[in-house]
Amino acid sequence: MVPETHRDLIGRPLSDVPTPALLVDAVLLERNLAAMAAHFADSRVVYRPHTKSHKSPLIAKMQLAHGARGVCCSKLGEAEVLVSGGVDDIHITTPVVGIDKLRRLAALAARARLSVVLDNAENVAELSNAASAASVVIDAVIEMDVGQGRCGVAGVEETLALAAAVDAAKGLTLKGIQGYQGKLQSVTRFSDRRKGVRAALDKLLAAAHALEQHGFQIALLTGGGTGSLPIDLASGGLTELQPGSYVFMDSSYRQIDWNADGGRTPFANALSVLAGVVSRPLSDRAVLDVGWKAASSDSGPPVLKEGGYAVEFAGDEHSLVRGEIASTLRVGSRVELIPSHCDTTVNLYDRYHVIRDGAVEAIWPVAARGRTD
Amino acid sequence: MVPETHRDLIGRPLSDVPTPALLVDAVLLERNLAAMAAHFADSRVVYRPHTKSHKSPLIAKMQLAHGARGVCCSKLGEAEVLVSGGVDDIHITTPVVGIDKLRRLAALAARARLSVVLDNAENVAELSNAASAASVVIDAVIEMDVGQGRCGVAGVEETLALAAAVDAAKGLTLKGIQGYQGKLQSVTRFSDRRKGVRAALDKLLAAAHALEQHGFQIALLTGGGTGSLPIDLASGGLTELQPGSYVFMDSSYRQIDWNADGGRTPFANALSVLAGVVSRPLSDRAVLDVGWKAASSDSGPPVLKEGGYAVEFAGDEHSLVRGEIASTLRVGSRVELIPSHCDTTVNLYDRYHVIRDGAVEAIWPVAARGRTD
Repeated sequence: MVPETHRDLIGRPLSDVPTPALLVDAVLLERNLAAMAAHFADSRVVYRPHTKSHKSPLIAKMQLAHGARGVCCSKLGEAEVLVSGGVDDIHITTPVVGIDKLRRLAALAARARLSVVLDNAENVAELSNAASAASVVIDAVIEMDVGQGRCGVAGVEETLALAAAVDAAKGLTLKGIQGYQGKLQSVTRFSDRRKGVRAALDKLLAAAHALEQHGFQIALLTGGGTGSLPIDLASGGLTELQPGSYVFMDSSYRQIDWNADGGRTPFANALSVLAGVVSRPLSDRAVLDVGWKAASSDSGPPVLKEGGYAVEFAGDEHSLVRGEIASTLRVGSRVELIPSHCDTTVNLYDRYHVIRDGAVEAIWPVAARGRTD
Repeated sequence: MVPETHRDLIGRPLSDVPTPALLVDAVLLERNLAAMAAHFADSRVVYRPHTKSHKSPLIAKMQLAHGARGVCCSKLGEAEVLVSGGVDDIHITTPVVGIDKLRRLAALAARARLSVVLDNAENVAELSNAASAASVVIDAVIEMDVGQGRCGVAGVEETLALAAAVDAAKGLTLKGIQGYQGKLQSVTRFSDRRKGVRAALDKLLAAAHALEQHGFQIALLTGGGTGSLPIDLASGGLTELQPGSYVFMDSSYRQIDWNADGGRTPFANALSVLAGVVSRPLSDRAVLDVGWKAASSDSGPPVLKEGGYAVEFAGDEHSLVRGEIASTLRVGSRVELIPSHCDTTVNLYDRYHVIRDGAVEAIWPVAARGRTD
């Protein structure tokens, strides 16, 4: 639902886009998609990108066209939007709980290939009932806590017990194990990141080994993210990776050592928030029209695309630029901000303005925005 | 646009609402609206509630029915939604900048009574041109920085200069001055809050006095919020108040001394986020399905409605309850969370579930969600 005032923007220059607006640099997005595909060209490991970053079936289909095995999403509501948008192979990476939701999940499984994580026996029983009632088979993936301290069974014994429950349940196929460590993705020093990623992987491999010893076939070991990509590819322990951030790249990824040589990430910051200068009451204070409602703050403030200055949030609708830089900003001028966390910033917007050669090439809905249910 | 899966919720019990969901307690909302009206029953001061808190023309019209003089909003996009929803007297409390937006503002002024703040001469000239071209008259309110350190002219001299510019501009009527100090609203100690509010008011009154000395008619002195309400009403310096938070009440308002006697606020927490327990991997750790995408974090985490425990954010989709309370939460159970900041939490949702007597009475769209433009 593009408001009337926004309908005629396609083909017009960036300077005509009202602020604040969420911008995608079409060239950088395409470059990121191609760079990810290149990483997997000669690998036995496959990738299934996480769409929680962009919430768009259009971008999901671009990822599939670049060789992705399928896609991931976090929530059932997102999966419903993806299937409606034509995506037909989806892994849901967080538990789906409660009979009503499991019925929705089973209904969706009649329209697409679905897998979902589980971490407790009651959920296994309820999902089995829902799948049986709908005459569908759903791939079950046991979530293991490999250090994140969130969802997931705690150890090998619990994994074995849950595998036996899944194996005995109608309508479910035991597919494998998921172990994800989000906190590790943006650890700055490569050696620290590698150490953490390997420890998590060791825990996952021990569980997989125990399952196989007990006669379970484990076809899938899934996890990983953009920050752990070179480590996961080198170790080859996971069979399927879930990178999400690479499409847009949070500002913090600029800082991390990408690999052991201290190189920088091959992915570019393709997402920005276009901000307008709405006040400059003093020569050393400029006020932008981007506050907490237009850029997420959970991971800090966004930074100026040119120069990297971190703005200062000043309420729902504003942020401040202070000091010498402010004197270069006049009322009515515009700047681009790189979000500190793209996933939560995207979730504030109804649409992307896709920019190529300085003009609006397309407007894409953030179709699964707000679908946390 | 209510998704298919949500359409049949009206009349059903709260236990049928999928989590996460934004809930409004209908009785508490009505009580808050009535309590605010009672504050103004015998006062010369009037109120114009700030709709940035709820972004709903439906709630705006309830506020008008309770005696509000009109409403405030932060952004032009919000004003467009309010006018489309039948609200016809709106004050925009942040600067609207750039020729395209000023044309939209002038077009809107043909459909409703509008006032807007200004803090620089270029904006006055551009607004005047847009108003003249559209043959409308717009009420101009000079924004003064009374301590917030954001937008607004700095002092009396600048206020005088801008008043002269507005006075000379076609299509504009100089209506008054706005001075708002958001940071003061939730200062815990009443005496500290009163001191800050009075200092801000003194600055505003000095400017108003100077304008009147120079022959300008100043009918409007506007500002204030829910936290400063008893102070603003007692001093009587402002002619019009802009309380917004009172409809829902952030969790932090529970803590502040409402008045000199150390009493508590007369307004209740009428908004909550319904969360589901999706995992309890350990007896002392429960995982809720409310993360940064379902509750805002700019002012800290939300708290459990029962008991006030502050949850711990754990990523986009989750938060944690630790310790003894966790042992009382089983997978599939539900809890209500009171947001730390209602305005930014509301902005994450497409709709309110209005609850009365334990059932869904209505679903109201958050019609201006995302309209930061």
